Amino acid sequence: MTETLRVALAERAYPIHIGTGLIDEPAHYRPHLSGGRAAIVTDQTVAPLYLARVRRAIEASGAQTIEIVIEPGEAAKRWAILDQVIDRLLAARCDRQSLVVALGGGVVGDLAGFAAAVYQRGVPYLQVPTTLLAQVDSSVGGKTAINHARGKNMVGAFHQPQAVIADVGTLATLSVRELRAGLAEVIKHGVALDAPFFSWLEANVERLLGCEPEALTYAVRRSCELKAAIVAADERESGPRALLNLGHTFGHAIEAGMGYGEWLHGEAVAAGMVMAAELSARAGMIGAGEVRRVRELVARAGLPTEGPALAPERYLELMAVDKKVSRGSIRFVVLEAIGQAAVRGELREELVRQTLIACTTSATAARPSPCSSGP
Amino acid sequence: MTETLRVALAERAYPIHIGTGLIDEPAHYRPHLSGGRAAIVTDQTVAPLYLARVRRAIEASGAQTIEIVIEPGEAAKRWAILDQVIDRLLAARCDRQSLVVALGGGVVGDLAGFAAAVYQRGVPYLQVPTTLLAQVDSSVGGKTAINHARGKNMVGAFHQPQAVIADVGTLATLSVRELRAGLAEVIKHGVALDAPFFSWLEANVERLLGCEPEALTYAVRRSCELKAAIVAADERESGPRALLNLGHTFGHAIEAGMGYGEWLHGEAVAAGMVMAAELSARAGMIGAGEVRRVRELVARAGLPTEGPALAPERYLELMAVDKKVSRGSIRFVVLEAIGQAAVRGELREELVRQTLIACTTSATAARPSPCSSGP
Repeated sequence: MTETLRVALAERAYPIHIGTGLIDEPAHYRPHLSGGRAAIVTDQTVAPLYLARVRRAIEASGAQTIEIVIEPGEAAKRWAILDQVIDRLLAARCDRQSLVVALGGGVVGDLAGFAAAVYQRGVPYLQVPTTLLAQVDSSVGGKTAINHARGKNMVGAFHQPQAVIADVGTLATLSVRELRAGLAEVIKHGVALDAPFFSWLEANVERLLGCEPEALTYAVRRSCELKAAIVAADERESGPRALLNLGHTFGHAIEAGMGYGEWLHGEAVAAGMVMAAELSARAGMIGAGEVRRVRELVARAGLPTEGPALAPERYLELMAVDKKVSRGSIRFVVLEAIGQAAVRGELREELVRQTLIACTTSATAARPSPCSSGP
Repeated sequence: MTETLRVALAERAYPIHIGTGLIDEPAHYRPHLSGGRAAIVTDQTVAPLYLARVRRAIEASGAQTIEIVIEPGEAAKRWAILDQVIDRLLAARCDRQSLVVALGGGVVGDLAGFAAAVYQRGVPYLQVPTTLLAQVDSSVGGKTAINHARGKNMVGAFHQPQAVIADVGTLATLSVRELRAGLAEVIKHGVALDAPFFSWLEANVERLLGCEPEALTYAVRRSCELKAAIVAADERESGPRALLNLGHTFGHAIEAGMGYGEWLHGEAVAAGMVMAAELSARAGMIGAGEVRRVRELVARAGLPTEGPALAPERYLELMAVDKKVSRGSIRFVVLEAIGQAAVRGELREELVRQTLIACTTSATAARPSPCSSGP
């Protein structure tokens, strides 16, 4: 069973294929191989699992392949690795018709997507996400980037893929910790955009944690649908797309403050989402019951519900350099209800400070680190 | 006197202002300063000449400015310098509404434009070109890039400026060699696209070399018009825009083969243009008379009419890695007449080889280097 969504953009539309066994099907690659050459970019974790299968499917379409295997982990999103990819593309004489195939999680997608965005001022690429996080989040919307010492994703481009091939079969090789981190973004789509989907998640979160294929397929499809609708309305992130950043202002501060890689992105977003709900309640937009529902679902997914014990001043400093700063004041994505997020620019700093104090682990409290919520 | 052209693109249009004294006029910056902050990127050569004037004009519009002064020369188009610019933008808390102002020649325009393209996935920028080359070429069309060890402009983006402010008054501080290099691109527009403009250049090239403002203004305006019309029809360089690459396949090989900076870009394009005319004649498309007209105008402009003494095999190797390679065969921009360029993909390599032998300096010949054609 393959489901196909279309993301409709001004310039062009692209399909998202969701199902099992898709990475082996030449038909999903063939329409994009008119250049006769494909560079498969993946990392050392994913290569032994899926690289040969993808290569076989592409070569069955008559195209030549080159393989570019990068180091795993968020630290790979830096210039030196990007330059390695560019260098290999040039050495293999890839031209403007050559296809880049990003095979892996969000790091590979962001890095290989950015390489495709800037190689010879832009070449076509496919996203083949192999983590739940990448399937529901980073492969939809065309956001690509590398990190900078001063902040995450500070150098990047909007570059839409030709297609996304989301094979939920590849999720079987994820660690429980990574599966949970991906669930954070799934939950985010419910919290921010769709109350019925949030209720479905409340009823089915254990099926997702148990890796049931039908449940995963539905969750990925609904998440992609919700995100695709937003992206189609706002490709350049000037308006409603900001709603997808629910939890991300706090979350990026957690990631930057702890050093990238210490907390997984999804773990940081999970805690950030609870903090955003708490902030919304303190601003009088939602009640304590809504905050509790968010916190409980996050907890049932095995995700952290509190930020780490950084000083509030440090959080505020880290949030100020975040991209979502507009003319000096921090904009927050808040909740007006479950399933109804909104952007607010005029929140009093005092409310943010109270939220930080209420929603971070006190330095002396005994509390499991996010790492210990893994298997 | 200010003339304003509009480049009409699918997404949006932007104006090109051409005249004298424009860099001092706040009115040209004000519409683009709603973000309240402008980062002026320039180099150590241009900074003492024009930075204070541009800063004053921007601050007269009520915006804050930061100044980012980079090293001069083509070698600045590398990642380390781009990262310096990004770092300064982050340190100054520039956000997505901040304006980047590229003040200088083509190197500053390419580098600062690429920084604007990728900083936080894209911020607005102005081109304020201060060389003839940049005014007629690199500031129109949105091409931005840095170089790679394996080739020029291999990492970049299409990113359109908010506006171009082309102050021909700034051309008074150019060296004669740079003025001549800029003339190469002006001549190219006539050769490739507009026979009457080519004839006007034959009648007026000495006025341009003498820096007469009216002649310069006309030449810049007509060049920008010709280029803007092409770019508007083909923003992504898939079709007619390739015609603007007349002389560039040979030219890039000259630049790369000699080491970037040895030949100026315009000098390489000038020789490359004569080579393209020669190739066209050998392919039977134009006669010897047309080749002679191109060669003579290039010579009268004080520009080289031959490539350096590299082996033909080396030229072919360098040309094969050029971006204009499509599926393994080298595409050339050739002439069907003066003012009428065309793209051909099926030229026999033997004709290219003969052209290289006919149009490069023999290693033993005594011939002035392009450097000695300066004052």
